[in-house]
Amino acid sequence: MKIGIIGLGLMGGSFALDIKSVYPKSRIFGSDISKINEERAIELGLIDKVIDLIEFNQMDLILVSIPVDKSIYVIPKILDIINKRTLVFDVGSTKDAICKSIKNHPRRGNFLASHPMAGTEFSGPDAAERGLYFNKTNIICEVDKTNLEIRDKALEIFRSLNMKVIYMDAKPHDIHVAYVSHLSHISSFMLGKTVIEKEKNEKNIFDLAGSGFESTVRLAKSSPQTWTPIFLQNKKNIVLAIEEYVLNLKSLKKIIEENDEANLSNVLNNTNRIKEILEKYNT
Amino acid sequence: MKIGIIGLGLMGGSFALDIKSVYPKSRIFGSDISKINEERAIELGLIDKVIDLIEFNQMDLILVSIPVDKSIYVIPKILDIINKRTLVFDVGSTKDAICKSIKNHPRRGNFLASHPMAGTEFSGPDAAERGLYFNKTNIICEVDKTNLEIRDKALEIFRSLNMKVIYMDAKPHDIHVAYVSHLSHISSFMLGKTVIEKEKNEKNIFDLAGSGFESTVRLAKSSPQTWTPIFLQNKKNIVLAIEEYVLNLKSLKKIIEENDEANLSNVLNNTNRIKEILEKYNT
Repeated sequence: MKIGIIGLGLMGGSFALDIKSVYPKSRIFGSDISKINEERAIELGLIDKVIDLIEFNQMDLILVSIPVDKSIYVIPKILDIINKRTLVFDVGSTKDAICKSIKNHPRRGNFLASHPMAGTEFSGPDAAERGLYFNKTNIICEVDKTNLEIRDKALEIFRSLNMKVIYMDAKPHDIHVAYVSHLSHISSFMLGKTVIEKEKNEKNIFDLAGSGFESTVRLAKSSPQTWTPIFLQNKKNIVLAIEEYVLNLKSLKKIIEENDEANLSNVLNNTNRIKEILEKYNT
Repeated sequence: MKIGIIGLGLMGGSFALDIKSVYPKSRIFGSDISKINEERAIELGLIDKVIDLIEFNQMDLILVSIPVDKSIYVIPKILDIINKRTLVFDVGSTKDAICKSIKNHPRRGNFLASHPMAGTEFSGPDAAERGLYFNKTNIICEVDKTNLEIRDKALEIFRSLNMKVIYMDAKPHDIHVAYVSHLSHISSFMLGKTVIEKEKNEKNIFDLAGSGFESTVRLAKSSPQTWTPIFLQNKKNIVLAIEEYVLNLKSLKKIIEENDEANLSNVLNNTNRIKEILEKYNT
């Protein structure tokens, strides 16, 4: 199997490692907008060979793992050159704009819109890690627009990585991830910003940072190249999510200001439910 | 050495385990407002014996590890009954109110106000874990109000646990932790609340939860009994911290609404600095 990967960062690089582990005979080809990333991907053994975009027409399977604002231009171009047996899929964190960009493409059926709930706060080829895709949830959108044969090929790949597949339309997908993924990143980025700003005036504030701060602020280390276009492409849903989040923060502030112990304790207790919810979904 | 622990939850129970590992000959006595916790602490081998509060007058070392709204009543009472060689210290997340509560106590010199930057999202005796205190930062407040001999005794204990000691006045301590600890908890609790509320209307949203959501929302599992009084006792600083956090969220929302890509990318890039800051403070 000839596998082509466009974008050799965290997601593309990790996919290269994982797919090679389950299909050891496959050959992996790659391309990246950055020459440095391409060289590094070879050095790290993520891919076998760097090729030009035009050469992706010879691939059996193509992963597009680039920022979502680039995907909407690159995916149609890739569909222009492939043959009818090639599976093209992406791993972008937004799905509506990407699905729209190829809505009427003659090769729409060769594309599978997917979003694996996998990642770390690191980026670039050096962030690639073996096992990133294994046992993760993969959301597939508008599956009925993908040809049956292509769909089966994709499902076989995901099964080989032991991924749990969920089907969803693109619009509800974008709403849901605005809350469980994008808002997490925004709350973390803004927590980091608030504390950094305070630190300008209050020396050594970070001496006090414990593991609680570290885990809450972890996502603020994420790549701006990846997340800027996600926040803009999912603007409508993210703006609503931020507004609901801010309302909750303001309401909590009021409860604290009013010394309303019973209500405060109540809100925290109700939110503790997240423990059981996450446990349930993790098993 | 006779060690007495008032409050046998995460912090008290873990201290029992850690202190026993460095002073294996010490005897550990404990008391908790909950009979169930006392029995569990015995079962788990955290403490050797349950005693009444009045019997703490025979201890060499007393740790008060109870919610901060209880500490301001219990610490003065404990100071009433101890002898002049006993060290009493606490692990509360706020320091100003606690220091004030014993400001004019004749045994003020026997008390050391401390705040180890250690903890997990779990609570109760079963949450006790070996090693929780080792290698952590410990903030000591108003050290000049603690007798020299008592101070040395405390420092020896902290040294045995390989803790890094930082000195700070109570008021700046409370300001700093409002940002690096309390705001992290609030941002996490409110993220959990916002997503749970959304889930009522949108089924199966948690199917999509990845590791990013999990780490950002981890602190929302924390004990309401511990955190309700912390938020209220540190009200003034926490309200300010929430206000700054909300301003940053609103400003980001505006940037997203206006499609201001350059500015958005800029904000995320600047906040990425948190990576180097945390690395610097972790080494």
